[in-house]
Amino acid sequence: MFADLLKQVRETQPLIHNITNYVTVNDCANIVIACGASPIMADDPAEVAEVTTICAGLTINIGTLNSRTVESMCLAGKTANALHHPVVFDPVGVGVSALRMETAKRLLREVKCSVIRGNITEIKTLDRLIGGLGVPGRIRGVDASAPDAITEETLESGIAFVKAFAQKAGAVVVITGAIDLVSDGARTYVIYNGRKEMASVTGTGCQLSAMTSAFVAANPNQILDAAAAAVCAMGLAGEIAYRRMSKEDGNASYRNYIIDAIYRMSPQELAKGARYEMR
Amino acid sequence: MFADLLKQVRETQPLIHNITNYVTVNDCANIVIACGASPIMADDPAEVAEVTTICAGLTINIGTLNSRTVESMCLAGKTANALHHPVVFDPVGVGVSALRMETAKRLLREVKCSVIRGNITEIKTLDRLIGGLGVPGRIRGVDASAPDAITEETLESGIAFVKAFAQKAGAVVVITGAIDLVSDGARTYVIYNGRKEMASVTGTGCQLSAMTSAFVAANPNQILDAAAAAVCAMGLAGEIAYRRMSKEDGNASYRNYIIDAIYRMSPQELAKGARYEMR
Amino acid sequence: MFADLLKQVRETQPLIHNITNYVTVNDCANIVIACGASPIMADDPAEVAEVTTICAGLTINIGTLNSRTVESMCLAGKTANALHHPVVFDPVGVGVSALRMETAKRLLREVKCSVIRGNITEIKTLDRLIGGLGVPGRIRGVDASAPDAITEETLESGIAFVKAFAQKAGAVVVITGAIDLVSDGARTYVIYNGRKEMASVTGTGCQLSAMTSAFVAANPNQILDAAAAAVCAMGLAGEIAYRRMSKEDGNASYRNYIIDAIYRMSPQELAKGARYEMR
Repeated sequence: MFADLLKQVRETQPLIHNITNYVTVNDCANIVIACGASPIMADDPAEVAEVTTICAGLTINIGTLNSRTVESMCLAGKTANALHHPVVFDPVGVGVSALRMETAKRLLREVKCSVIRGNITEIKTLDRLIGGLGVPGRIRGVDASAPDAITEETLESGIAFVKAFAQKAGAVVVITGAIDLVSDGARTYVIYNGRKEMASVTGTGCQLSAMTSAFVAANPNQILDAAAAAVCAMGLAGEIAYRRMSKEDGNASYRNYIIDAIYRMSPQELAKGARYEMR
Repeated sequence: MFADLLKQVRETQPLIHNITNYVTVNDCANIVIACGASPIMADDPAEVAEVTTICAGLTINIGTLNSRTVESMCLAGKTANALHHPVVFDPVGVGVSALRMETAKRLLREVKCSVIRGNITEIKTLDRLIGGLGVPGRIRGVDASAPDAITEETLESGIAFVKAFAQKAGAVVVITGAIDLVSDGARTYVIYNGRKEMASVTGTGCQLSAMTSAFVAANPNQILDAAAAAVCAMGLAGEIAYRRMSKEDGNASYRNYIIDAIYRMSPQELAKGARYEMR
Repeated sequence: MFADLLKQVRETQPLIHNITNYVTVNDCANIVIACGASPIMADDPAEVAEVTTICAGLTINIGTLNSRTVESMCLAGKTANALHHPVVFDPVGVGVSALRMETAKRLLREVKCSVIRGNITEIKTLDRLIGGLGVPGRIRGVDASAPDAITEETLESGIAFVKAFAQKAGAVVVITGAIDLVSDGARTYVIYNGRKEMASVTGTGCQLSAMTSAFVAANPNQILDAAAAAVCAMGLAGEIAYRRMSKEDGNASYRNYIIDAIYRMSPQELAKGARYEMR
């Protein structure tokens, strides 16, 4: 099935509108192309509705948000909703500031997201925001806090959490980490692809969110499966890229190799390399 | 002749002011250095006139424009005009929104551009805007629409179009695609360098525009030839970089190899590798 | 000692807030990770104080400043000061516009910087600004002007200048160039690491500033030594990366190799490869 989902991206070449941070935007554009889709970036309120209209999918990433782009995110999101285009929301570092929390709350209230993708700390923060609970203690920047990590030991509680949150949010939820979870509240993919070294490249999460938009835009009737396919593809690319590294290569070359691996990945390779179970 | 034009960039090392999108800005900076010039990026209305003043050339790229940077583009453009510095205009995705169309119209009205570079869809959109015709149908994001592509079959009509538009716009016009055209309305370069895989790297067009600024700033009395030299250099770099690719390399490595090829390209290599005819 | 300073970055993994330009921001993020720290970028006045609060260090880089981000720089800087977090200031191209000069003056007045890092032209411009002297003649963009360069011949006067300026500014001052100087006004490191080809990669200075934040945040009681260690690490990475280059590699690959070299650099390797003398 994953083979067909990727094939569909390559065949339909959906145009993806990304309102995203300026730190990782170039990598997001290149990985969207690598998987077979076409990216466009536009973040001014004066044009985002029009841009979203000609696209097949929208990514909203709050990584370097500001007052101008927050308006653009809401406008583009509502436009995508009206057109029934999928919206992928990436709540980068949502717990680090009131601005990010207020923006996330507003987006979740005003925009129906097809997919929400974050690390466990970000998703737990969203969960508390939706529940009106405020945010606990100290947030560790844009990376996941270790105590929350989903591992073999915490898998069962992680699955219960992602299912409950997916139901509450009315979206497919992707939690990435040592083990990745993708759930629509009923079915949950538990995904074992990926390498811990991917965390040494800035923006692998942002890239995955942008690529997820491509997968769900090309497969709008299979949001859960398409999101899971994107997660497997990213993790598998991390594995392929890692095997390619020489002893002189570090995180900069690894960054390139991961995007290269997506570019070279055939549907069959994805189907064969994907490692997951359904729960 | 192309050898001398590149040599002149390396010897005079012109400082180039780029008001450009944040998606591909890093690659633009590195390719400007690679060809021998020096980049500076500044986009606030409070400083762009001063920055343009100390530079030898200006690139205006509307890829991720906003209300603040549109003012900067106009201000910098007028300053460059007053100082008789060349201005290269890249109308990225001009057809996707009213904001981009209004901005392009305003720039063409208020700023004398030395060179306008875009794909066929972008240039045809400009042509209709200048003619007051509005824009036809659906625009396909920032990439060229297939039906308009300039190929062996459509070459004659393409040449006629670029000549007519160059006369109308009063600028050297560069249309990049499978075959590239560079015309001042009288003479037209038909350029066969390049590879189709260059479209898989985000921003090769943006990079070419920034590099064109370097070539024309270093050769201000040969705008047509300098623009054609930049187009040949970019296409040749795409060919050299492609030959270097391993079976594991994808668009991320290709991106690096293209810039590397510009960095390594000698004037003689450019002269030898350039493939074009005059029409 | 340098071994311990790098080890401390790897062990404490400080979170570094970077308000920096959008040209080189991705490389800044990746090099901060490569040295062992964790980056976060946020530049809106509505959130920078909170973001700085959860971080251990702050980088302020005026490379593509605008009226919105200038406020953010001041706000974040004051917050860092109140919390006694180190602040690294990079006055990119400070002489090119009144906006940059006014911003630099304001930052130096309102924010206590732990480290100021620039090329000789930038630091000389700051010196005149502090002294109320205005700025001499023509500024050459964001690169150092040749006549000012610190070389074997001008070393003694360079050392005298950096010492005097460090005392005046009340900060550790880093002047990078053919020879790098790092001084707190009393002790001065004269550093011989690095390669001239590093200037062909956009943003090696920005990267060094971001990495310096990581080093001083991890070693807050040894600001001078930590800044010198960062400078040596960067120069050594430039040497290691240069040795790795094939005859096809240019500045794009060099960029990646430099970050890779930081990622791979062991504390022992830094201690062994650092070439400096104290003055």
